[in-house]
Amino acid sequence: MVVLVLSEVAATELNLEESFTTHAGIAHTRWATHGVPAPRNSHPQTSGSGNDFLVVHNGVITNYEVLKETLVRHGFTFESETDTEVIPKLAKFVFDKANEEGDQTVAFNQVVLEVMRHLEGAYALIFKSRHYPNELIACKRGSPLLLGVKELNDDVCNGSAFHDAKFLSKNGNPKELFLSSDANAIIEHTKKVLVIEDGEVVHLKEGGVSILKFNNDKGRNGDSLSARPASVQRALSILEMEVEQINKGKYKHYMQKEIHEQPESLTTTMRGRLLRGGSCKAKTVLLGGLKDHLKTIRRSRRIVFIGCGTSYNAALAARPILEELSGVPVTMEIASDLLDRQGPIYREDTAVFVSQSGETADTLLALEYTLENGALCVGITNTVGSVIARNTHCGVHINAGCEIGVASTKAYTSQIVVMAMLALAIGGDTISKQERREAIIDGLFDLPNKIREVLKLDQEMKDLAKLLIAEQSLLVFGRGYNYATALEGALKVKEVALMHSEGILAGEMKHGPLALVDENLPIVVIATHDACFSYLRIISLC
Amino acid sequence: MVVLVLSEVAATELNLEESFTTHAGIAHTRWATHGVPAPRNSHPQTSGSGNDFLVVHNGVITNYEVLKETLVRHGFTFESETDTEVIPKLAKFVFDKANEEGDQTVAFNQVVLEVMRHLEGAYALIFKSRHYPNELIACKRGSPLLLGVKELNDDVCNGSAFHDAKFLSKNGNPKELFLSSDANAIIEHTKKVLVIEDGEVVHLKEGGVSILKFNNDKGRNGDSLSARPASVQRALSILEMEVEQINKGKYKHYMQKEIHEQPESLTTTMRGRLLRGGSCKAKTVLLGGLKDHLKTIRRSRRIVFIGCGTSYNAALAARPILEELSGVPVTMEIASDLLDRQGPIYREDTAVFVSQSGETADTLLALEYTLENGALCVGITNTVGSVIARNTHCGVHINAGCEIGVASTKAYTSQIVVMAMLALAIGGDTISKQERREAIIDGLFDLPNKIREVLKLDQEMKDLAKLLIAEQSLLVFGRGYNYATALEGALKVKEVALMHSEGILAGEMKHGPLALVDENLPIVVIATHDACFSYLRIISLC
Repeated sequence: MVVLVLSEVAATELNLEESFTTHAGIAHTRWATHGVPAPRNSHPQTSGSGNDFLVVHNGVITNYEVLKETLVRHGFTFESETDTEVIPKLAKFVFDKANEEGDQTVAFNQVVLEVMRHLEGAYALIFKSRHYPNELIACKRGSPLLLGVKELNDDVCNGSAFHDAKFLSKNGNPKELFLSSDANAIIEHTKKVLVIEDGEVVHLKEGGVSILKFNNDKGRNGDSLSARPASVQRALSILEMEVEQINKGKYKHYMQKEIHEQPESLTTTMRGRLLRGGSCKAKTVLLGGLKDHLKTIRRSRRIVFIGCGTSYNAALAARPILEELSGVPVTMEIASDLLDRQGPIYREDTAVFVSQSGETADTLLALEYTLENGALCVGITNTVGSVIARNTHCGVHINAGCEIGVASTKAYTSQIVVMAMLALAIGGDTISKQERREAIIDGLFDLPNKIREVLKLDQEMKDLAKLLIAEQSLLVFGRGYNYATALEGALKVKEVALMHSEGILAGEMKHGPLALVDENLPIVVIATHDACFSYLRIISLC
Repeated sequence: MVVLVLSEVAATELNLEESFTTHAGIAHTRWATHGVPAPRNSHPQTSGSGNDFLVVHNGVITNYEVLKETLVRHGFTFESETDTEVIPKLAKFVFDKANEEGDQTVAFNQVVLEVMRHLEGAYALIFKSRHYPNELIACKRGSPLLLGVKELNDDVCNGSAFHDAKFLSKNGNPKELFLSSDANAIIEHTKKVLVIEDGEVVHLKEGGVSILKFNNDKGRNGDSLSARPASVQRALSILEMEVEQINKGKYKHYMQKEIHEQPESLTTTMRGRLLRGGSCKAKTVLLGGLKDHLKTIRRSRRIVFIGCGTSYNAALAARPILEELSGVPVTMEIASDLLDRQGPIYREDTAVFVSQSGETADTLLALEYTLENGALCVGITNTVGSVIARNTHCGVHINAGCEIGVASTKAYTSQIVVMAMLALAIGGDTISKQERREAIIDGLFDLPNKIREVLKLDQEMKDLAKLLIAEQSLLVFGRGYNYATALEGALKVKEVALMHSEGILAGEMKHGPLALVDENLPIVVIATHDACFSYLRIISLC
């Protein structure tokens, strides 16, 4: 369906000779969550003919229908099925209204501030307008946003691009600015970034950057357009990643690359944390970010794992080992369900938040909720400096390296290993389990090699996959340690093969799903040689 | 596929003139869990040509493969794919071996006792043998088994059936005996039953009944065939159900009947428990079986819901209200998963076991495990006298009436209402929630009428169902209170329509399942007017 857009672009008559002096552009690389994939639903979305305002958006506007109704009543015509389209139209509405009222001097950031006051949901937005040439406004609430800053060396800028003195940085070098919701888009240009926080409005104008802090609650009471949010001073941070991380190398796509990176990513995950011990020292685990909190966690009434999607499955995979080594009951919570139920969380609970990006919207909201209720919050994330890394009391980075594929692979296994190490650390003070812990540590050391062995089956796996390619449906069964693998495997098939696959606890087979089983429906049974093996052989021989 | 068996029976040349003096017969009405539905896999299973031993079986033999290998090595040929077939063959093997050793007088029950020593898993069995005419042996471990006893009146037995004096009861009336795993099969003959317990061996011989208690552990040490288990004296109980309950009446099948019984079954569930209060008395809940334990439950560290299939879904549906009213964290456990993980359970936990039959094998094992770990055990079951009703510390019967349909319907709603009443009772001592509790009580009183309204949509539902009849796959989304409804709805479609349907938490949509959504895949979104409504409208408008 990307082809649709590309062909539409190819059909457009572009004057490739014309030269512009514009120094600001916006674009978007993913499909919207709303509406079918089609050119009209792709970003930027526009305020209408004339493109007075253009917007790219990452997130979901939950009150877009109400806004849409209002705007339609004011004469706006909508062309897309996106939630995003209300944003540029609302910007035009605000701009036009301010001008009618004679406020000819309304600034771009004031228009955006007024728009933000009406938006509910999660978003990172970038605005562009023909009324404010060479200006960009970016703002966010709930979704991530980064500003990259690049100072060009003299030899790079010998060309004609940067004549304008306004685009020179303080030391006289010209400057480029990048806004993105993902570090991967910035890293090939610069490692210097500013992490934009909720409610901040970034104004790029005449080569300069100004950041205003927008407080939603205060704004609602006062005169909205004339309220002056406070200016913000922020320091740049340095991205800890390399451009090589975002090269696909010999692989066809990022997901394939990341699957094959697992022996290395797991080694990095364990490096310096899993200690081999020696002649008179026991094998042990050292998690620097947790060591001051281990006593508290051991005395918790419960450990609550909170996550979404793959991160939830990783926590489910680690649950048995944590229960076994700590003896603390572990409760599983899908972040959105915990919020819907407003489930009981207390000071005696330890809540563990699992998120690759550290920015998953529902998990962040659950973190806020849990902090309010006084529980100890532990973060497990792949992203240094992410909201979860910053707002939890303590935590562990999974150090899996940059994960670009939309379907999580190496982050999943690194998450499980980190939670296994968490289990070893929490259970580290019991003598009776010392032997078992050492066996697990040996197993973890051996894991990268085992994965290397498994990855050699790449071609056989492909051949097996070909057998299933025409199927409509797939059931994946597992129990015990493999329950999570069944869920995660089915999720991957859903995401990547777009086949309806369902992961089912094998023990639940006879309570319904058995009815589906016939000679046509393909079934995958995950059966490793453990205590559950004999049950699963019975199922597979059915 | 039932047709297959029926046509095979029709093709058999039966001599309908021949008369037998046999007073013992066995049969089986359901398909086995092992092997495809086919005549060779239906019960009774046989020891081979000659039918030396015949067996009907309810349950699963987990070590049947090992037994099968051994028996094959001894020359037995297997014809079915069932786990059951090893049982009659093992019986023949034991019988032949005893005879070879010169023990010509081996009794039927001794053969069965020896067979039981080798079986692992859950089972209720009935044995018949041509070596022991007019005798039946029944035994059980894990699966339910009832013995029905009927004394015939003189006017009934005027015919020729009961000449044999051995079939007269003590007061001179003739007697009929029934063995079944379900009261529904017995109720049309008699209400007098004996509930057979694990390890008991029932011997029907010459009109008399003897029951032996078989202790597995002792047996293993001693000389197995000559060990003499103790004889058991037991009193008859009276089934509290009516024959009318197992009539389908005007309905096409039991499931339809039970769906339409819900207004009445829910009224019965709430009768005498939900109190309307009055001018000076507050509305309240009275659960007799729980009132001495409410203080303990309120002080629990956790409430753990344990169940399988539909009962698990019912508990999930009741979870938010229990958390809200009690403030106690509720953990959900699928019984088999708790056992696989050997999850931590402690004295401060309250475990609630939910099972319509009160005999669900995995739930029973989880109950044993939980009792060992010292938690307070609460039973929620539809079956008076069931193992769960007997072995829990306290509990509530759902009083939904007999449920015969394999797919649970009215028991599901009654389970939810009982757990809502449980929540009201546990939360009954907090003043701040009094108003909310009264609103819930009013809602419960109103529920039967609301269900009556919904059931009027029967035909519209059928018309809707017709739209989906040709589909391969179905997704059912729900969140908040409706998450459980989505899971249970999908399970029903699996069980009854044999269509691959999956219940998904709507909040997890964007973490994978969204990839499946296109213009072809049918999706059901359950969206009631509650706090989650706006999120779900967004999904359904996608």
